[in-house]
Amino acid sequence: MSEKIRSKRFNMQNSNNKRMIKVVFLGTSSGVPTRERSLPSIFLMYENERILFDCGEGTQRQLMSEKLKFMKINRIFISHWHADHFAGLLGLVQTMSLENRSEPLYVYGPRRTEEFVERLLGVGYFARSFKVVAKDVDEGEEIKGTGFKVIPFRVEHRVPALGYVFREDDRIRADMEEAAKFGLKTGPKIGALKAGKSVTINGKTVAPKDIIRTEPGKKVVYTGDTKYNENIVKFSEGADLLIADSTFGEEFTERAGDFRHSTANDAAEAAKKACVKQLVLTHISRRYQESEGCISPKTLEESARKIFKNTILARDFLEVEVK
Amino acid sequence: MSEKIRSKRFNMQNSNNKRMIKVVFLGTSSGVPTRERSLPSIFLMYENERILFDCGEGTQRQLMSEKLKFMKINRIFISHWHADHFAGLLGLVQTMSLENRSEPLYVYGPRRTEEFVERLLGVGYFARSFKVVAKDVDEGEEIKGTGFKVIPFRVEHRVPALGYVFREDDRIRADMEEAAKFGLKTGPKIGALKAGKSVTINGKTVAPKDIIRTEPGKKVVYTGDTKYNENIVKFSEGADLLIADSTFGEEFTERAGDFRHSTANDAAEAAKKACVKQLVLTHISRRYQESEGCISPKTLEESARKIFKNTILARDFLEVEVK
Repeated sequence: MSEKIRSKRFNMQNSNNKRMIKVVFLGTSSGVPTRERSLPSIFLMYENERILFDCGEGTQRQLMSEKLKFMKINRIFISHWHADHFAGLLGLVQTMSLENRSEPLYVYGPRRTEEFVERLLGVGYFARSFKVVAKDVDEGEEIKGTGFKVIPFRVEHRVPALGYVFREDDRIRADMEEAAKFGLKTGPKIGALKAGKSVTINGKTVAPKDIIRTEPGKKVVYTGDTKYNENIVKFSEGADLLIADSTFGEEFTERAGDFRHSTANDAAEAAKKACVKQLVLTHISRRYQESEGCISPKTLEESARKIFKNTILARDFLEVEVK
Repeated sequence: MSEKIRSKRFNMQNSNNKRMIKVVFLGTSSGVPTRERSLPSIFLMYENERILFDCGEGTQRQLMSEKLKFMKINRIFISHWHADHFAGLLGLVQTMSLENRSEPLYVYGPRRTEEFVERLLGVGYFARSFKVVAKDVDEGEEIKGTGFKVIPFRVEHRVPALGYVFREDDRIRADMEEAAKFGLKTGPKIGALKAGKSVTINGKTVAPKDIIRTEPGKKVVYTGDTKYNENIVKFSEGADLLIADSTFGEEFTERAGDFRHSTANDAAEAAKKACVKQLVLTHISRRYQESEGCISPKTLEESARKIFKNTILARDFLEVEVK
């Protein structure tokens, strides 16, 4: 084996060990942006996959600010069709065209997504170098990718709205210490065991359960815009990261209800019930700013932490890694 | 006369004296934004009027960064229907609605403007608190406002495209030094002279031409996207400020031609021929950046200045006052 290939294989193993989900918050405002917060969009990177959850106005420029390779984005999941969650789609698609993209771009969202994408991309004069494939999805339909799937689930907003689970596939690995006890080394027999078949070594039968371990894949959940809802808890069960609507603090509980949004405390309650590992509060109303006449956004975090300790407040360009 | 009223009148006279046009460049990129340049939009302020020329993605946030009172914007002039010039319209209208605007918003542009505005505002779920009145306009049709008019003119791009002249009304004023020689002071007789009528004082007839002077109103011209074209020169004649497409430098002359854009030198030639007072270059290709692999944007300015000295290169948030 040449040095080059050896090194390549080593890198591959290395990259397997380092397999992780990276989330970058591109926009963390609610309906109206502020000087500090751009409109909703979340970038998720996993292996070769680049995904956006929502694509508010300004998303392409936020991507450029972070030098994220936006041309590699292949899938965009729209939580619902309020302009603050989709108005950046037009500009992003135009820029991708100007960059001569040829790969299709998939856009998923609740019912009427196909209709709205077609309508949006029909405004103005628009030479497109690639296909935009829009698809209405609903709870119960999974979107499969390489090494992961995205699972939509229904949430409760004023218009049809979905949350999304990004779920890494479970990892099947051999416990090589246990394997050594049976006299097994890496090779086809380990492969057979991983595939669920028993093997015989030195006259002894080894079953998959003896050395094969299943590590559950990592899980990231995005609620989109929603009122507190038991479905969030159900789909967030044990998530490594829950990104939740936290438009208001307790002082606007009634308003949150009226507009079918969550408070920071609602988000924390869901995180606690679902036993998630980390909660990030986003979709922050401009009422929460460090300026005169506004409430400090820190109050959202402080209040939520009393219910669920591992809470952080999103800010634009916050990066969270799930390893 | 009470002190209060006196002071008010004094202020009014003062504000008349200071009457000016203020232009703020909100976005100065061409089709693709950069970290430094947002997508095309120009804010123009004159007395109580707030106008946008083009409304690229990100316009509402750029307006907020400058603390400009965007709710007062009553008219938006779209140069043409390429997404980089209009994609910010949806978000701006949504934000104005969330702010409970009630006044109508007028959107003007070349043919199909009504169709495209209706189509754009029909994407997603959208409760609108005010009317958006879209209107197709063409060369020869003037849009009149209080103390000014906007004059569309045809330019040469790949799709129907307009430039716009913002023209302050001529000012009729009495030369009070001359008037004194006839024994005339401010009063109804001066008013009659301003209205074009002769008056008699001390048995002597005074004609308007004796003391009435016409000061031509200030003129600001925006070309939108266009190839060099004699119509730009015609409509920019004597302008106080010409804001011109300057997508490329001389090194991309052929590309500029292919895509119906101007080079910095084209803009300077037009400025020179039209004898304008000030030229601002905008709609700058991302090929011109102060970073590796790019050409310094200063080269655009330097090159244009050899043809027309009073040239400046636009940057986001550049303010130009025309007094």
